[in-house]
Amino acid sequence: MGYKVAPLARLIEQFERFPGIGKKNAQRMAFYVLNLSQKDAQDLSLAISEAHSKIHNCSVCGDLTDEELCPICKSVNRDKSIICVVEDPADVLAFERSGEFRGLYHVLHGVISPINGIGPDELNIKSLLTRLNNDEVKEVIMATNPTVEGEATAMYLSRIIKPLGISVSRLAYGIPVGGDLEYADEVTLKRAIDGRQNF
Amino acid sequence: MGYKVAPLARLIEQFERFPGIGKKNAQRMAFYVLNLSQKDAQDLSLAISEAHSKIHNCSVCGDLTDEELCPICKSVNRDKSIICVVEDPADVLAFERSGEFRGLYHVLHGVISPINGIGPDELNIKSLLTRLNNDEVKEVIMATNPTVEGEATAMYLSRIIKPLGISVSRLAYGIPVGGDLEYADEVTLKRAIDGRQNF
Repeated sequence: MGYKVAPLARLIEQFERFPGIGKKNAQRMAFYVLNLSQKDAQDLSLAISEAHSKIHNCSVCGDLTDEELCPICKSVNRDKSIICVVEDPADVLAFERSGEFRGLYHVLHGVISPINGIGPDELNIKSLLTRLNNDEVKEVIMATNPTVEGEATAMYLSRIIKPLGISVSRLAYGIPVGGDLEYADEVTLKRAIDGRQNF
Repeated sequence: MGYKVAPLARLIEQFERFPGIGKKNAQRMAFYVLNLSQKDAQDLSLAISEAHSKIHNCSVCGDLTDEELCPICKSVNRDKSIICVVEDPADVLAFERSGEFRGLYHVLHGVISPINGIGPDELNIKSLLTRLNNDEVKEVIMATNPTVEGEATAMYLSRIIKPLGISVSRLAYGIPVGGDLEYADEVTLKRAIDGRQNF
């Protein structure tokens, strides 16, 4: 019902496929596009096609880049002795926003998930081991998500990496800063107690 | 911080401009685009540029269309004796979704708003009067939004239209269906009482 104008219907339908975008929002977004200037609409359309065609994975760490190496791997200011292993490029952005980590990253592009048919060979793991063999890496931080699959993947990797004489660590679990104890789930609370630190 | 890959930064920035889309959502949307297949990304880019270039206002009612006349004005199944005047094309979609209204529409593309420098001449009003003079219109329903400007615009139009011998009506105000009396504001409650109807 309603969307009888084909190009409008197609546009709304495209926006509805975006994550977290419902029918109403897709419609608002489509009207926003129709109200753009000719140039702004072209810029938007171009930004999509360019981002898609130009961005690929960094040949070293697997993060997103439009050049051979990503800005972090290319940087001379990063500590090359420590690698933070994450699931997705979005996780790299999260770390970079915090500005706390000055080492390098390695993006797995997923987690080991037998139920979805994803084994170690489907992930960006081989190139991690190559980096560990060639480079002056002293520590690997496992920063996969605190899910069953994220844990299992971290465990799997640490068993491979430890024998190489490289120390493997895990992000701390606990109460999120600004979080409310009252609303923390039992598992998080247990982890927070287990990982308690001396003042 | 973080968005050091230019095409990705540009895409996120484009999505942030959309109404109701914050930083986090824009980022999720950009990653969604990067994960699309080549064809799907092209389709999305094309849907935007096509919708923008092909869609314009119906020469009769001002609603959106990619042809000379919109599907509603062109239809032989609509009651041409009644016109519903709305602010925006999105309002037409809302009415069409309800499926209750079988007449025609007229889209003003805004409301009279002296504070924003929008007078009657900036709105799609002249073509409404042309329709009323030429056509077999018996009734005009004012369906502008229940805001100060929407009210004033409806008032302004009704003063012009009534002398033409055409009856002018207004959408009913009241408690929204499924709404909770407890949360209704005072103005709405007053309107609901004023407009009460016999069982």
